[in-house]
Amino acid sequence: MQIDVPGGEHQTPAFLAKNPSGAVPVLELEDGTIISECTAITEYLDQLSGEPTLTGRTPQQRAVIHMMQRKAEAGLLDAVSAYFHHATPGLGPDIEGYQCAEWGNHQRDRAVAGMEFLDGILADQPYIAGDAFSVADITAFVGLGFADFAEIAIPEEYGHLNAWRQRVGARPSIAH
Amino acid sequence: MQIDVPGGEHQTPAFLAKNPSGAVPVLELEDGTIISECTAITEYLDQLSGEPTLTGRTPQQRAVIHMMQRKAEAGLLDAVSAYFHHATPGLGPDIEGYQCAEWGNHQRDRAVAGMEFLDGILADQPYIAGDAFSVADITAFVGLGFADFAEIAIPEEYGHLNAWRQRVGARPSIAH
Repeated sequence: MQIDVPGGEHQTPAFLAKNPSGAVPVLELEDGTIISECTAITEYLDQLSGEPTLTGRTPQQRAVIHMMQRKAEAGLLDAVSAYFHHATPGLGPDIEGYQCAEWGNHQRDRAVAGMEFLDGILADQPYIAGDAFSVADITAFVGLGFADFAEIAIPEEYGHLNAWRQRVGARPSIAH
Repeated sequence: MQIDVPGGEHQTPAFLAKNPSGAVPVLELEDGTIISECTAITEYLDQLSGEPTLTGRTPQQRAVIHMMQRKAEAGLLDAVSAYFHHATPGLGPDIEGYQCAEWGNHQRDRAVAGMEFLDGILADQPYIAGDAFSVADITAFVGLGFADFAEIAIPEEYGHLNAWRQRVGARPSIAH
């Protein structure tokens, strides 16, 4: 089911009954169970088959991926999002509620620090959570895409991060 | 290993090498793997035995618990934390870096909204993620404890939340 976010459909009582935070996406199972929060949905879909490819197989793999996903989310994606929604017009006055420009502008610096952190990680390993592509890479890749959209430049000197971005962007699931 | 946070030990190069965000706790495995981020550590320890009691057994249980843990974290614990660190002296000028009081004060309202959300959830079910106690209850319980510490009162009219808090507080793992 499509939800028209620029049209404010995520703030209607019908949608808020499914997810009180008003965030998309929401997964509705056949038994009526509703699952919101991106990371919960991703993990559910990935683990459902018993053959996970994005969120890890062993408790240790899962812990490392969970950790790095969270770091990419908090340090990059959330920071870019806070900048966009607080320090720019964001989705416009009808959709954005409270905005705090000072906070938003500070998050821009945090987003660049998040890029620097990821660049350091990628100096030592090919993917954000180690040797294999994982949901942590998806979060970081989407974070950089959102940074482009919000006009936060990725410093050229972050060579490991930029090379990783090119490599991830060439994957069939993304390039096609 | 104890880290003296009021003394700033979490900001030393030795600790930042283990967790660049400077946050505690950090779990160091025998093979040298370092796991930070509370939720990753909790899930790792709970799933290690193959008999998880806090983070769910099936993909669907795990997804619902993950979702509710995240909602309790973002809507209550993170909001209380942002209020404490931004709108009060927090841990003092030597430890707190950037503070944005306007943002912090807004988070106080968000924390109370988070309490209202949890109260509504607990009107329909005994625990935050359904019929069984889970890590989502721990996050919410700690969030209320942090709210006490930060002097954000829990409104008396949130009867479901207050009754749940008494019930959870009486559990042997917490009461003793």
